[in-house]
Amino acid sequence: MRRRLDTLVVVGVGLIGGSFALALRAAGYARRIVGVGRRRATLEQARSRGIIDECAEGFDCARGATLVMLAMPVGQTGGVLRALAPHLEAGTVVTDAGSTKADVVAAARAELGARIGAFVPGHPVAGTEHSGPAAAFADLYRGRRVVLTPLPETEPRALAQVREAWQVCGARVFELSHQAHDRMLAVVSHLPHLLAFALVDRVAADPRAQELLAYAAGGFRDFTRIASSHPEMWRDICIANREALLPEIDRYWEHLAALRSALESGDAAALDTVFGRAREARGRWLASGEAPEPPRPATPRASPSAGSGPRS
Amino acid sequence: MRRRLDTLVVVGVGLIGGSFALALRAAGYARRIVGVGRRRATLEQARSRGIIDECAEGFDCARGATLVMLAMPVGQTGGVLRALAPHLEAGTVVTDAGSTKADVVAAARAELGARIGAFVPGHPVAGTEHSGPAAAFADLYRGRRVVLTPLPETEPRALAQVREAWQVCGARVFELSHQAHDRMLAVVSHLPHLLAFALVDRVAADPRAQELLAYAAGGFRDFTRIASSHPEMWRDICIANREALLPEIDRYWEHLAALRSALESGDAAALDTVFGRAREARGRWLASGEAPEPPRPATPRASPSAGSGPRS
Repeated sequence: MRRRLDTLVVVGVGLIGGSFALALRAAGYARRIVGVGRRRATLEQARSRGIIDECAEGFDCARGATLVMLAMPVGQTGGVLRALAPHLEAGTVVTDAGSTKADVVAAARAELGARIGAFVPGHPVAGTEHSGPAAAFADLYRGRRVVLTPLPETEPRALAQVREAWQVCGARVFELSHQAHDRMLAVVSHLPHLLAFALVDRVAADPRAQELLAYAAGGFRDFTRIASSHPEMWRDICIANREALLPEIDRYWEHLAALRSALESGDAAALDTVFGRAREARGRWLASGEAPEPPRPATPRASPSAGSGPRS
Repeated sequence: MRRRLDTLVVVGVGLIGGSFALALRAAGYARRIVGVGRRRATLEQARSRGIIDECAEGFDCARGATLVMLAMPVGQTGGVLRALAPHLEAGTVVTDAGSTKADVVAAARAELGARIGAFVPGHPVAGTEHSGPAAAFADLYRGRRVVLTPLPETEPRALAQVREAWQVCGARVFELSHQAHDRMLAVVSHLPHLLAFALVDRVAADPRAQELLAYAAGGFRDFTRIASSHPEMWRDICIANREALLPEIDRYWEHLAALRSALESGDAAALDTVFGRAREARGRWLASGEAPEPPRPATPRASPSAGSGPRS
């Protein structure tokens, strides 16, 4: 039943790519894992953690590979596919883990040409605010959703290969159009990241920032957790999905402006309604079992780290 | 050294008042604890959990008390002080745990008259999104900041009594003017709560809310944790502190609008700068030791509960 991968190539060996590799290795599903990245030190770190067997700086290593997983910031997708394309052989399946899909699909169409059928756009809806190989752990995807957004041209064997690999990681695989994916993730992921970055930046820009933070409690800590996420990765995501994200900022602002008006006029009943409705909706979500449990990283980290690799 | 309280009266036996009572009891610091509340069932629940020894519906019980702690939603402060005042004896100290201080001070001045010197306004900067007696735990305040905002009239023995009680709970006690307190908490606590409530409400109001939430991950879960907070309590806090909160909403919007412009014009460098600055500031805060560790509730709860009692 299990196809077992011969050679897996992971481009970007950070939290997302590294955890994918660790999960497949833990399941005995990949015979040989090659990591590709911009920084030699990061690749060596991934090798020393047992994430990859070999380090590569170019894409020669993709010759004869069973699966290539792209797990660098989405802004690099076009460049990486362009460099990768000449080395792709007929049997090799390519997938990605980017948090946005329309831009990735456009890049794949532009760079892969007739090989587009071997490309399966994907996005694991999982992550932590940490990044780099040290943040990767084999259980990151266990029980979590992975969205695949296959194209009309996607070959069934490519889709089946990628689906199986994610299932081996313990993930639940769903299919959506890339448009539906990008609209939904703008609301529940990209917008909250932008809001959290904006709040921390507002506090950090204050002349009394240190004193303000001294009185910040657990609410602030958790609200802003995602503002510790990888800046380059989130810059790429926001720009890639700005067509969906810009109207979401405006829609959010309408909700906040309505709350602001209620507050200004001292309309206690209106605040009660909104706060109560929000609490109830969140409670139903938690009770539904769809809300993810907090992940258990292999090496808990209190401070942000440099490195590459996208997250949701 | 330790003054040991004879009778402690706690008005509002939820997360905040209940945890204060449990901490003082655990330290052997309070001989007898009387709970006062609106709902008999809540008081009985607090008694059955060992938070209080006796239940009271009126304020007769305050006669002869050493300390009265007000821990109901701040909107009730005026009414409670009015009902309490006729029962206060000369030696009794009164304090509160409200998240806003200017409104509490105004209510105390209005209702306590010549007894104002016995009142010590306070705010423990600690909490969880859960509420009610079941959410209370003795360690809630360990290592956390408590802000006292004494008035010119505050009697030194009253201030010393309240300071000591909080220290017995394991808290670190600081003094601020109530104006400085309210301005700072508007930024790091009240604003994030409003932002989180607004985001969950935006999602809940969507015709496809359920599908959206199915693709929400850990970032959304933590960003919105505080949107599970007690609606009445947060309605009261927002209204009580609206003079400070309204300009903070506007200042935040300026930051978000600048990000929105950068996004619209595809200004990657500007996004990089803001995201990087935010990540760094948060990293420094975590590394400073000032950021609170996640609390360990006695009874972890996955769903919101009814009940009273403020939190920060």
